[in-house]
Amino acid sequence: MPITIIDETTTARTDGRAPGDLRDVKITRNWLDHAEGSVLVEFGRTRVLCAASLTEGVPRWRRGSGEGWVTAEYAMLPRSTNTRSDRESVKGKIGGRTHEISRLIGRSLRAVVDTKQLGENTIVLDCDVLQADGGTRTAAITGAYVALADAVAFATRKGWVKASAQPLIQSVSAVSVGVVGGRPVLDLCYDEDVTADTDMNVVCTADGRFVEVQGTAEGVPFDRSELDALLDLAVAGCGRLAQLQAEALAR
Amino acid sequence: MPITIIDETTTARTDGRAPGDLRDVKITRNWLDHAEGSVLVEFGRTRVLCAASLTEGVPRWRRGSGEGWVTAEYAMLPRSTNTRSDRESVKGKIGGRTHEISRLIGRSLRAVVDTKQLGENTIVLDCDVLQADGGTRTAAITGAYVALADAVAFATRKGWVKASAQPLIQSVSAVSVGVVGGRPVLDLCYDEDVTADTDMNVVCTADGRFVEVQGTAEGVPFDRSELDALLDLAVAGCGRLAQLQAEALAR
Amino acid sequence: MPITIIDETTTARTDGRAPGDLRDVKITRNWLDHAEGSVLVEFGRTRVLCAASLTEGVPRWRRGSGEGWVTAEYAMLPRSTNTRSDRESVKGKIGGRTHEISRLIGRSLRAVVDTKQLGENTIVLDCDVLQADGGTRTAAITGAYVALADAVAFATRKGWVKASAQPLIQSVSAVSVGVVGGRPVLDLCYDEDVTADTDMNVVCTADGRFVEVQGTAEGVPFDRSELDALLDLAVAGCGRLAQLQAEALAR
Amino acid sequence: MPITIIDETTTARTDGRAPGDLRDVKITRNWLDHAEGSVLVEFGRTRVLCAASLTEGVPRWRRGSGEGWVTAEYAMLPRSTNTRSDRESVKGKIGGRTHEISRLIGRSLRAVVDTKQLGENTIVLDCDVLQADGGTRTAAITGAYVALADAVAFATRKGWVKASAQPLIQSVSAVSVGVVGGRPVLDLCYDEDVTADTDMNVVCTADGRFVEVQGTAEGVPFDRSELDALLDLAVAGCGRLAQLQAEALAR
Amino acid sequence: MPITIIDETTTARTDGRAPGDLRDVKITRNWLDHAEGSVLVEFGRTRVLCAASLTEGVPRWRRGSGEGWVTAEYAMLPRSTNTRSDRESVKGKIGGRTHEISRLIGRSLRAVVDTKQLGENTIVLDCDVLQADGGTRTAAITGAYVALADAVAFATRKGWVKASAQPLIQSVSAVSVGVVGGRPVLDLCYDEDVTADTDMNVVCTADGRFVEVQGTAEGVPFDRSELDALLDLAVAGCGRLAQLQAEALAR
Amino acid sequence: MPITIIDETTTARTDGRAPGDLRDVKITRNWLDHAEGSVLVEFGRTRVLCAASLTEGVPRWRRGSGEGWVTAEYAMLPRSTNTRSDRESVKGKIGGRTHEISRLIGRSLRAVVDTKQLGENTIVLDCDVLQADGGTRTAAITGAYVALADAVAFATRKGWVKASAQPLIQSVSAVSVGVVGGRPVLDLCYDEDVTADTDMNVVCTADGRFVEVQGTAEGVPFDRSELDALLDLAVAGCGRLAQLQAEALAR
Repeated sequence: MPITIIDETTTARTDGRAPGDLRDVKITRNWLDHAEGSVLVEFGRTRVLCAASLTEGVPRWRRGSGEGWVTAEYAMLPRSTNTRSDRESVKGKIGGRTHEISRLIGRSLRAVVDTKQLGENTIVLDCDVLQADGGTRTAAITGAYVALADAVAFATRKGWVKASAQPLIQSVSAVSVGVVGGRPVLDLCYDEDVTADTDMNVVCTADGRFVEVQGTAEGVPFDRSELDALLDLAVAGCGRLAQLQAEALAR
Repeated sequence: MPITIIDETTTARTDGRAPGDLRDVKITRNWLDHAEGSVLVEFGRTRVLCAASLTEGVPRWRRGSGEGWVTAEYAMLPRSTNTRSDRESVKGKIGGRTHEISRLIGRSLRAVVDTKQLGENTIVLDCDVLQADGGTRTAAITGAYVALADAVAFATRKGWVKASAQPLIQSVSAVSVGVVGGRPVLDLCYDEDVTADTDMNVVCTADGRFVEVQGTAEGVPFDRSELDALLDLAVAGCGRLAQLQAEALAR
Repeated sequence: MPITIIDETTTARTDGRAPGDLRDVKITRNWLDHAEGSVLVEFGRTRVLCAASLTEGVPRWRRGSGEGWVTAEYAMLPRSTNTRSDRESVKGKIGGRTHEISRLIGRSLRAVVDTKQLGENTIVLDCDVLQADGGTRTAAITGAYVALADAVAFATRKGWVKASAQPLIQSVSAVSVGVVGGRPVLDLCYDEDVTADTDMNVVCTADGRFVEVQGTAEGVPFDRSELDALLDLAVAGCGRLAQLQAEALAR
Repeated sequence: MPITIIDETTTARTDGRAPGDLRDVKITRNWLDHAEGSVLVEFGRTRVLCAASLTEGVPRWRRGSGEGWVTAEYAMLPRSTNTRSDRESVKGKIGGRTHEISRLIGRSLRAVVDTKQLGENTIVLDCDVLQADGGTRTAAITGAYVALADAVAFATRKGWVKASAQPLIQSVSAVSVGVVGGRPVLDLCYDEDVTADTDMNVVCTADGRFVEVQGTAEGVPFDRSELDALLDLAVAGCGRLAQLQAEALAR
Repeated sequence: MPITIIDETTTARTDGRAPGDLRDVKITRNWLDHAEGSVLVEFGRTRVLCAASLTEGVPRWRRGSGEGWVTAEYAMLPRSTNTRSDRESVKGKIGGRTHEISRLIGRSLRAVVDTKQLGENTIVLDCDVLQADGGTRTAAITGAYVALADAVAFATRKGWVKASAQPLIQSVSAVSVGVVGGRPVLDLCYDEDVTADTDMNVVCTADGRFVEVQGTAEGVPFDRSELDALLDLAVAGCGRLAQLQAEALAR
Repeated sequence: MPITIIDETTTARTDGRAPGDLRDVKITRNWLDHAEGSVLVEFGRTRVLCAASLTEGVPRWRRGSGEGWVTAEYAMLPRSTNTRSDRESVKGKIGGRTHEISRLIGRSLRAVVDTKQLGENTIVLDCDVLQADGGTRTAAITGAYVALADAVAFATRKGWVKASAQPLIQSVSAVSVGVVGGRPVLDLCYDEDVTADTDMNVVCTADGRFVEVQGTAEGVPFDRSELDALLDLAVAGCGRLAQLQAEALAR
């Protein structure tokens, strides 16, 4: 699924992609039998299992508001990575990175949810990385949206959400961009990620607006023109992901 | 893969199996790209991802012994079950059941490992339940053995283990048995498990000897004849699993 | 209190016992002033303090059921063992073995409790190992039953449990068996335990039925005939323990 | 210290500032006697104590590299906020927000440190919020840089860092921007922050390049033109902060 | 503010004080904008920020009693000390010393509070050590009383406490005394504290009675005459502190 | 073992003792088989098991000093008290009171140990309260000293401590005193403790000097004359305890 944005470069990326190419993206719905929505999302070798759990009621601080709640938890299996990491359950605490990404996924999804339309129901999105090869948080957001859509549809079928309600305003997806070898590229795999000078994760709605922009200078600080090029790539990439989400949901 | 032991019963089990039938068992090797051995094992709808991680060296208390170490960690994804469970990493501690099963898997595998032949290498087996429908610990042991065998083969290819060494003495597998509706049955699914009077997990070597026998009276205590019938079923079931492991490793 | 089962062996055990001999077992009731039931139970040098605490009400998940609850917590004092162990309270978490044994004791006691007859009352059994010389979990179960019986009697005297109710169905006791030096023996002390090939804990009711059977191959896997011999020893040992419990309760 | 960027608006902000105005910024060096560098930084009523602690040596994973290490920890006093929050030490774990901000401050400072020039020394920046009124993380970065500069100077005076070395490449500062009432504004106080549609934290070097850009749509997603306006405001604000840092260090 | 008690000594203390001299004591009220009472208290270079947080309601175990509750939490910033200490929040647990001092402060304040007069309101005193140079717990108690008085006045103004009520019986303050170089001295700074043979913290009410007396032999045990001399010094020192508290509250 | 100090009172205490009477004190040595020193100490119904564990080597921060280390850990069994308390191991953290008492016991013992004479050996005193009826910390100190003496004697016999060394300077014991019903009394049982106006724990050496004096006003603050009366009682009580310790060690 190549979307060529910058093709002035002749040297291919490590995996042969052009700078504006996504990796192969697969979205498999209903991967689990129990969850109200579930998706195995793959961005190349990155593989994230997204499960949406719907429950009646909301956290205490939201009770009586008439509004629902959507939240997310992200985690990596110990051997999703190249070398094994210790389990956070065994260490007895969640690391900073895990916390940060869980919060990012939750915020990103809530940006497209009209919690009033959801009623006092809660949907938790569990995003567990089965295999990591860069872009796990962006794959998680992209897959979690589809699982969320399935859980909302389930809630509507069950009558928990009114038939007339539209809890989802539009779709949301995410992609990473970065400057690798001096060149802005889309959807970095792990090998690219570790050598990137700038690393940015961008979360966009289907209409091309921004939900989150998180850019970090890994090596030297970046300037406005680099930032602009990265944003262009990201917006285009999210546009393609929004199509893939729509196709998956139409199946 | 039916193995009929007791067929005097005419009423089928909830899923149509005879008392001595295993569920459909699938063993998919190399499900992950990074791990030295990895298996997705399925006992019906129960699905466990077993990843073997090989590292040079052993825990401090074993250094200088010339012997290797094999250990295991078991965990369930929050939505592997019918209703979502809280993450143990978020709760900040491992529950008793998790501890117990992790220890059982580790002991079961070590029973067939000659740690002297392994040299000072460590293999950690991560058994993560992606979907639970009864028998997750027995599926985990059965799958983990195959992942372990692949990791040992990897270590041998890399020269970490001597070509002449035989770290694996024989294979090991496990199955649950129980008394359901007054009748001993093999390989209980969740619906059977919750109604069982007696619940037993049996771990056997390929030559039909016992590594672990763990029987618990859930309702009324059981007598020797029930125990004997359950052990018969379990030994036959493990025999069939040993064949399936061998077939998977031969592919 | 020797109960000879196998006497073809002429070589005595390290402490002079025949294979089917229990160690000296002492059951001292009312060792504490505050607890509703309390027992200092001794299996040779193993010494466990079992305290039964009775409270009105049940855990939240059981409220309104009309049924009671019985649970247990096991722990070892830091210097109950040969070399000092760190406190689990200082480490900030319960180890796997502690979890496992606490759960075993709780299940074993509940197997002989008719929770409906108990009414909505809770009894917690605290089993604290003051000195460990093998068989701490089996001594704990054996002593805890007596403390439980005293707490139930207390509850009946106080009218918390109806005079006509029979919350205890029968007694329960436990003993370890194992294969030491190729020979099945009963009630292993620590020195025997560390050299045992097979180690089994068996929990029986007074009528000789099984509540728990937990056998583990420490060295080589064991076969059915060894398992049978161990079960025979254990059933006989539990029978003797049931007598001792009855005698203690009759005093 | 007003820096007017957008002055087409006639309605003042809640505290009377123009959209491009910073709050009163005060940087007080040497607020502590023990620390190698310390700054009390104030952005209006937001007050953060930044202490730089210099120690010889680096974390284990960096030993022998010849390179130094700079890291940061952020925390809020329980009553820095409008209503008291529980202490994270009492809760026994660090929250996600604390983790996230600590990591942000550390990355931001490392972006302007040449760790090779620092030699194998570690500098920890503790940023404790004494009073919070919005923008605590940006104040922390801005103040921490000055404390870091003082600690580097201390290290140089002591000879821990060579006289010829230049561990600091340039200065770094940070500011928040957001869309409040439909209008992009600089350096939000708490009242503005809670009503902002978009909230962005920008970290810039003295030469106006980006170290971090973190924008979040709190309400509706934002478009490219809003993003551009916010970036313009932020770059100008960081420029002013860089001057104030330089003035403080010149005193 | 010298109060000379023992002046037979001619050699001055390390900072020039006479044995019965307090360090310079400063009590700055309203150091924070949000808290209902707040004090920056300084005993020489020791600097503690005391914030009083008033909330309606009391802990569960006190509900319906009609009585209020006063408690305290003490903590040190990581770089309040000469060398940096790890954060207790990062370590995931509170140390023994922190626990001990928090409890001491709470008890000391409750000794002068008539909780019935307070009504069902809670006041939490957070005492955070910004800089430590000996005597942090005594400075904390002395400052916390003033913050408490301001919070009570606030509660009275708001009508949470009846205008006629007198929740504060009298003032309370604390000071350290010790035997340094064979000589009893008042209000030890850190350098004196580490070399003291006996270290005592004394908490007194304004009328010169004792709330807490905590004496510890650091080196050799102390005798009754030393104890008496230390108590004399402490009572005089607390008397002076009570005046300073009264002056601060009168401003 | 009555030691009458104040006999102007005619009304007896709840248990019939005169104000200056200790409860029955029993010191049973070698209560455990494994520990290098062990004592079951009883102050009336208060029963504390003190185990001394000797190990070669010292904590890291003391290595190479040539000096030994003595420390203590105090804990209560869940049902040592009138109503059951939750286990600190299950709660995952040590409470403030436990911390405080552990530290007190450790300091008290170190006050009579010449760590240079001990050589680089560590002795840990575990003081576990089996039954609590007031005065657990003072019983713990009193019993722990005897266990310590036995462990030192063991170390000397084994040659870990030189035959000529005298690691113990003198004995140490502790007792509680308090003002109950307006009258100073010695060695309070629980019923007295809860009604006491002033509560003081005093740790004395055999020669009648003070190691610790910890007095707390529970109700109204106390004055100097009350303090003096309490100290008199405590010194006499510790004197009697020192005799009992000596007698126990002489047996």
